[in-house]
Amino acid sequence: MATLVQEKVRQAVSILEEKHIDLWMTFVRETSAVLDPILPVIYGATLTWHSALIITRRGETIAILGNLETETARRTGAYQEIIGYDKSIQTELVRVLQRLNPNQIAVNSSPNDPTADGLTHGMYQQLEGYLAQTPFIERLVSAEGVISALRGRKTPSEIARIRAAVDATEQIYRQTFEYLQPGMTEKQVAQFMHAGIREKGLAEAWDYENCPAVNSGPYSVVGHAGPTDILLERGHLVHFDFGVKQEEYCSDIQRMLYLLKAGEISAPAPVQHAFQTVVDAIQAALKAMRPGLVGAEIDNIARSTVTNAGYPEYMYGTGHGLGRAAHDGGAMLGPHWEKYGNQPDLLLEPGQVYTLEPGVAVPGYGYVGLEEDVLVTETGAELLSAGQKELVLK
Amino acid sequence: MATLVQEKVRQAVSILEEKHIDLWMTFVRETSAVLDPILPVIYGATLTWHSALIITRRGETIAILGNLETETARRTGAYQEIIGYDKSIQTELVRVLQRLNPNQIAVNSSPNDPTADGLTHGMYQQLEGYLAQTPFIERLVSAEGVISALRGRKTPSEIARIRAAVDATEQIYRQTFEYLQPGMTEKQVAQFMHAGIREKGLAEAWDYENCPAVNSGPYSVVGHAGPTDILLERGHLVHFDFGVKQEEYCSDIQRMLYLLKAGEISAPAPVQHAFQTVVDAIQAALKAMRPGLVGAEIDNIARSTVTNAGYPEYMYGTGHGLGRAAHDGGAMLGPHWEKYGNQPDLLLEPGQVYTLEPGVAVPGYGYVGLEEDVLVTETGAELLSAGQKELVLK
Repeated sequence: MATLVQEKVRQAVSILEEKHIDLWMTFVRETSAVLDPILPVIYGATLTWHSALIITRRGETIAILGNLETETARRTGAYQEIIGYDKSIQTELVRVLQRLNPNQIAVNSSPNDPTADGLTHGMYQQLEGYLAQTPFIERLVSAEGVISALRGRKTPSEIARIRAAVDATEQIYRQTFEYLQPGMTEKQVAQFMHAGIREKGLAEAWDYENCPAVNSGPYSVVGHAGPTDILLERGHLVHFDFGVKQEEYCSDIQRMLYLLKAGEISAPAPVQHAFQTVVDAIQAALKAMRPGLVGAEIDNIARSTVTNAGYPEYMYGTGHGLGRAAHDGGAMLGPHWEKYGNQPDLLLEPGQVYTLEPGVAVPGYGYVGLEEDVLVTETGAELLSAGQKELVLK
Repeated sequence: MATLVQEKVRQAVSILEEKHIDLWMTFVRETSAVLDPILPVIYGATLTWHSALIITRRGETIAILGNLETETARRTGAYQEIIGYDKSIQTELVRVLQRLNPNQIAVNSSPNDPTADGLTHGMYQQLEGYLAQTPFIERLVSAEGVISALRGRKTPSEIARIRAAVDATEQIYRQTFEYLQPGMTEKQVAQFMHAGIREKGLAEAWDYENCPAVNSGPYSVVGHAGPTDILLERGHLVHFDFGVKQEEYCSDIQRMLYLLKAGEISAPAPVQHAFQTVVDAIQAALKAMRPGLVGAEIDNIARSTVTNAGYPEYMYGTGHGLGRAAHDGGAMLGPHWEKYGNQPDLLLEPGQVYTLEPGVAVPGYGYVGLEEDVLVTETGAELLSAGQKELVLK
């Protein structure tokens, strides 16, 4: 059976054909210091000295790397030709390019997509130096389209891993909702969730300190900040943002709970209205999602659901790609803000996985944010996560 | 008490003064995808949207970052001024630079030093775009000298962490030497060492698959490749390369064992000669190490000890910096091979930690490689690791 690395390298060949790019080169060194995020996808081990992983439209797969690492390259089973060197990569690199004579050399540099931007500026300058006396210096192009497709279009085994991560996350959520009590601190609840991760032998999907985020009540700062000593109190909305990494693939899910005050049998009207609005925004976006639309269109559907209900717009994108990283390749389901580059203009494609995560603040109660994980299919989209439609009450 | 991040940010200010650089800017985004290796040193959390961490020679510390992450920045306690934005960093970034008006803006780009090369090419291009209409575009310089000094010159608390990692590693080695028996596979031995790491709640210093490396006998491929099903047999040299990460700091140690054949009470003469040569090479380098020498000088001392003893030179550098990563900042104790850039010409400085790891193959028996971890002091250098001088016999 093909490993995931072998599967993705083969997929890359067909993407190069589709994008009319002759050659894609991942050029890295000391990946224990700076890791090109595509390396785990197409190689699966660290590389120490200057290394070039070359994949061509014709199906050639070539690794040029330090002699002490050729054995590891061989063991990946993903590269037909493995070339070692001792002192400098330049000679072998230029020789291989001359032999293949590609019209385009796609390199991992992108102002738009961080997951396609693993080539450092120093390495780019070195590459320019190595190729200075060759025609190839004029043939460098960005691999962003190749990488976005390769990361975005998940194979069945990648989707299976994400599903497993989502399931584990929902389990830990259920246990947490049973466990938590008014009077606990945000930190205590987070500790319980960390223990749940350890018990399953998994890892956090992002920073340990901020995963989970737990926000209780109106004074807890929402965003990428960790839980605090703020107490869970009756009358508080409790907001969670949490994900796990299982077999290298992530989930990213937000959930909501309300702590009933004495005498209450449901959440107060403003809380319910905000919650319903966020649910509606997610459902509207989910129903609209299908291959051929662009990210900004989906963002606009969720965003306008929130603003049409009378709330201010949330100051972040509605959703992002999900996969090996909690923020992974594919389109940005976001507005045309400068910081998102061209990502809101990218197309939805079958096999992509996205989050949907609109949010609304409810003064006096806290923050309502839900986040679901969604798979784009050939004809639409389906939820991978449970799709919270009722506030958890406790 | 100051945290390590606060300690290192303060140290950075004094290094900027020493290097006559007005301003150092770490410019990053989506660090869960591409992590600038200096970020854990001067910040300690991930950053999602375009973010600039600015430290000046005059002692200003400014973080410009997405509004959802300002709270985390505040909690680091290392940045006096925290500026949030929603849609684009450009306005605030240019405003801050105009206010400070630095003559040099050092950015994390270096063809030479991978740990100082965390700025991606795509981000460099974006920065050029943001600064295009300003005089600052002409003032960008490489931060490699700043980062090399900051990573290289360990504070007492950093050294304490490396010592702890070294001690844990030596403990696991002792347990492993007791445990292993002829007839076990390399993989079985590695499994025992992994369990030792788990038991202590630590992590591998590098790739799980290749940490430890275990090489038994003459047919095991030495280098950055993981253990295999090759059996440990009497008459084999068994070579280990292993390190742990404890509180974010690493060890990196190689050890040697010989499995006595029936009737043998010591290793055969060629094994002993090779082992003694490697010990001598390490001792000669260790005695020579002191502030003011450059990396290539130390490499040459160890390398010529090996070649003078009649062995071929090893095709890698004698040693490298050690710290947060198994291959960390400071000089390269290596020859002037192109792949090392200017790193062999850098100075040894007090507080740096290096490995020393010469090696020799012994046909018919296996590979002899030892690796010690060494602290550069004001007047010389001292071993952090035990300094293996006798082959472990079993």
